[in-house]
Amino acid sequence: MANEDEAAIRGLIDERVSALRERDAARAVAMLAPDLVAFELAPPLVADRPTDAAATQAWFDGLAGPVETEVRDLTVHVCGDVAFAHSLNRLRVVRKGGAVGAFWMRSTLGFRKRDGEWKIVHAHTSVPMRMDGTFTAAMDLEP
Amino acid sequence: MANEDEAAIRGLIDERVSALRERDAARAVAMLAPDLVAFELAPPLVADRPTDAAATQAWFDGLAGPVETEVRDLTVHVCGDVAFAHSLNRLRVVRKGGAVGAFWMRSTLGFRKRDGEWKIVHAHTSVPMRMDGTFTAAMDLEP
Repeated sequence: MANEDEAAIRGLIDERVSALRERDAARAVAMLAPDLVAFELAPPLVADRPTDAAATQAWFDGLAGPVETEVRDLTVHVCGDVAFAHSLNRLRVVRKGGAVGAFWMRSTLGFRKRDGEWKIVHAHTSVPMRMDGTFTAAMDLEP
Repeated sequence: MANEDEAAIRGLIDERVSALRERDAARAVAMLAPDLVAFELAPPLVADRPTDAAATQAWFDGLAGPVETEVRDLTVHVCGDVAFAHSLNRLRVVRKGGAVGAFWMRSTLGFRKRDGEWKIVHAHTSVPMRMDGTFTAAMDLEP
């Protein structure tokens, strides 16, 4: 059922956004497959321990409030036990001390259905880089 | 036939690498779906005209030799008419004037099979950014 599967995947993305808002590390990693290959915002090229709830918790511990995520232009392609999705996500956090981080990024997710449950097996998150010689991340872009 | 489809997708990626090496813009865009959603290395967040052979040709015209691409750790997930793939790609170009650009990037591709042919409907290419306050692209990373 492609429609049911698309609904399940959209629900899983909602659940992840909700877990980040609540800063609940166990919930935030619950939909990640143990063999997840993650291309994250920060180095290295491939994340070392992307499913580690303790690392997620350490990030949350540096924040003064919820992780707010706005998901725009979410597109889901699904067939059988394989799916992928892409969207533009605006992330906004306030760090302890008051510094605000807020920017748009691109998100691509790959999914497999295993034992009837969809899991994230691939994640790619990025900000484009300016090709003006500085190669700085363009964190002021709007969709 | 998942194995045949995986072989077709790997062949399509080989063909794209070959087209870039030959600097053949028409071949390089032939496997892109007209509705491709591309998250490219450079701004904007979503590429304006990712399937435009003329824009690809303009990039080639600034180069003194082939676009060399090494594809590492290519993983393909396929089911029916949906597939996605991810890899680490080392790009190396020599610009007219002699400047060399060479770095590793992360590549994720999404595919749909339409009328029996696989096409790229989503592409996400990035370099991670340093979280040291400079937010510069980390172009010296190795897998």
